[in-house]
Amino acid sequence: MTTVGILGGGQLARMLALSGAPLGLRFLVMDNVADACAGQFAPMVVGDYRDEATLSEFASRVDVATFDFENVPAESAQWLSERVPVFPNPGALATAQDRLAEKTLFRELGIPVPPFAPIDTREQLDAALADIGTPCILKTRRLGYDGKGQFRIKSPADADAAWEALGAQAPKVGLILEGFVHFQRELSVVAVRGRDGEFRAWPLTENWHVDGVLSASLAPARVDTALGEIAYDYARRLAEAMDYVGVFALELFCRDGELLANELAPRVHNSGHWTIEGSETSQFQNHLRAVLGLPLGDTRMVGLACMLNWIGEMPDALPMLREPGGHWHDYGKLPRAGRKVGHATLRADDANALAMSLERVGLALGREAQVAPVVEALR
Amino acid sequence: MTTVGILGGGQLARMLALSGAPLGLRFLVMDNVADACAGQFAPMVVGDYRDEATLSEFASRVDVATFDFENVPAESAQWLSERVPVFPNPGALATAQDRLAEKTLFRELGIPVPPFAPIDTREQLDAALADIGTPCILKTRRLGYDGKGQFRIKSPADADAAWEALGAQAPKVGLILEGFVHFQRELSVVAVRGRDGEFRAWPLTENWHVDGVLSASLAPARVDTALGEIAYDYARRLAEAMDYVGVFALELFCRDGELLANELAPRVHNSGHWTIEGSETSQFQNHLRAVLGLPLGDTRMVGLACMLNWIGEMPDALPMLREPGGHWHDYGKLPRAGRKVGHATLRADDANALAMSLERVGLALGREAQVAPVVEALR
Repeated sequence: MTTVGILGGGQLARMLALSGAPLGLRFLVMDNVADACAGQFAPMVVGDYRDEATLSEFASRVDVATFDFENVPAESAQWLSERVPVFPNPGALATAQDRLAEKTLFRELGIPVPPFAPIDTREQLDAALADIGTPCILKTRRLGYDGKGQFRIKSPADADAAWEALGAQAPKVGLILEGFVHFQRELSVVAVRGRDGEFRAWPLTENWHVDGVLSASLAPARVDTALGEIAYDYARRLAEAMDYVGVFALELFCRDGELLANELAPRVHNSGHWTIEGSETSQFQNHLRAVLGLPLGDTRMVGLACMLNWIGEMPDALPMLREPGGHWHDYGKLPRAGRKVGHATLRADDANALAMSLERVGLALGREAQVAPVVEALR
Repeated sequence: MTTVGILGGGQLARMLALSGAPLGLRFLVMDNVADACAGQFAPMVVGDYRDEATLSEFASRVDVATFDFENVPAESAQWLSERVPVFPNPGALATAQDRLAEKTLFRELGIPVPPFAPIDTREQLDAALADIGTPCILKTRRLGYDGKGQFRIKSPADADAAWEALGAQAPKVGLILEGFVHFQRELSVVAVRGRDGEFRAWPLTENWHVDGVLSASLAPARVDTALGEIAYDYARRLAEAMDYVGVFALELFCRDGELLANELAPRVHNSGHWTIEGSETSQFQNHLRAVLGLPLGDTRMVGLACMLNWIGEMPDALPMLREPGGHWHDYGKLPRAGRKVGHATLRADDANALAMSLERVGLALGREAQVAPVVEALR
């Protein structure tokens, strides 16, 4: 009997537990809130991620540990890894937590990135602004998540406001200035690497964000096979460089047929939720297979899939449940502004059927704007 | 927040809970043993199914109740149904619990059945033997399950032994003598009926039993479309006659192109486990959709699927996990002779790929005999 420990008890931990149950696994989830939604289907340990007593209890009850979010304190991950096997390794987690370390790694590996510069002082901001130009984005190096801790600089005149918003954080977590990319598409590669180095990736996914939060994903993305191969190659280089074990997502911008790396998420990823119904093996089961040293499952798609995120509150389920390929995912959370409370995946055998299905659901839910870019991409 | 209560905490309850989580449901499982495997992923109430205090606690904590096995005491189901909505209804459960009532219903609905006769005395057994002929099977009317409580009569000379084995049960649960059918195939229709009467069925499944226990299932079964239509029609007639709500399986014998009804299982069914990966909507999620009055999901298949049952103990998982379409289901049970401890489903896009996959797994596990009839059916 193997017990997998998961730090963080949100929807990713919940879907990991649900997909790992058929492997005969047990789970133990650690979270700092008692009503974390993974706790509805797995036992929990509740406490601060920095609390050694809680971590110690967690470590004593699991055979292997993994994460449902990347902002686990690096020291906690390190402490844990000295007691139980932890995948991905704390070093990979630390790199992915730090935008500067991450982008530096991209550059070292020959993976194109938008221009960036570390910012510690107001003077550095001014110099970098002159170098990178506007528009650009000032971000904290750590703990950024879905658009939080970011300030968009449209013209040099915004420098004061940007520094006022984030400057105080420069001495604490550091800042980074990133050039804005006029991309045509946002893509992601969701990939998995096993303990033995085996590497697999799902078909490229195209993503649409609203206010910095993922709104919809379409797989496979409408790109050349050649571009897909390049993206896989980038993902593989990163995984090997970090000795990464488990699932991760590499977010990419596609600009004039060129791919630029945006960021790496060291965990199962929102843009891979469609794999539950849309591929032979879901990202959740493959993450567990990787972490446990089991053979990786097939990542091929079955038809096409579109994932729609539900933010804030769940919409009416009925229009989606009435669709032939409609699959509902309610995370069992209370509604709250900006919170990811669920998603739905529409699967279809061809692009036209998927587009029609999306249009019906968009109309029934009054969410025409959410489905529109996907429908347009399919036509 | 809806809580679904499940009487019985075996693998069916476990798979119901896992497939219902994405609908935002919570579960409460009642079982008479504390280590029932569904309890690994859902809270439990432990107690005897006839104990009113336990039933009362269970009823007070659920919004709707259903079953993971059919031998729930009829009075307990009735008692519950006076307090919370119970699906399927206790009357349907009672009919399906009683082989005589069930076969009488088949006959009333014009559904062909093998010859049968109620047996209360030794004299009736002799008369029925003369009428039905041998070989035939003497069975208890109730609580039969996977070959238990059955005695096969090969010639009239076996009548004494049969009566010695089961006669004492005649006054208690009643007996039934069933003519043996020289069938070419065993089939099942897994079907679902909603609270609004909507009816759907998955493609016919072909089944192979060993010692009375399901060993392998293949879907779709290799039968004429016309035969499939007849089977669906039988299932629909039964569901409507019983005002059935939820998933059920109708087991059929196929003899010389004719279908004969064997028995009805008023629950999600072992021969429908392949629907988890092999169809758009699994039997588990559709059972919950039906019970909750939600729209039923699409029952179409995605390719072909073969389910292999693991009895007694789990085999090595690796050969199956290495197959592109291999899906593992370990129920988290301790090994025990004759116990259903897990299953695996192989999915493939064509018959030849499925046959080759089965052969590889059969060879690797030393289970050539288990896969052989399915491979033969596919070739």
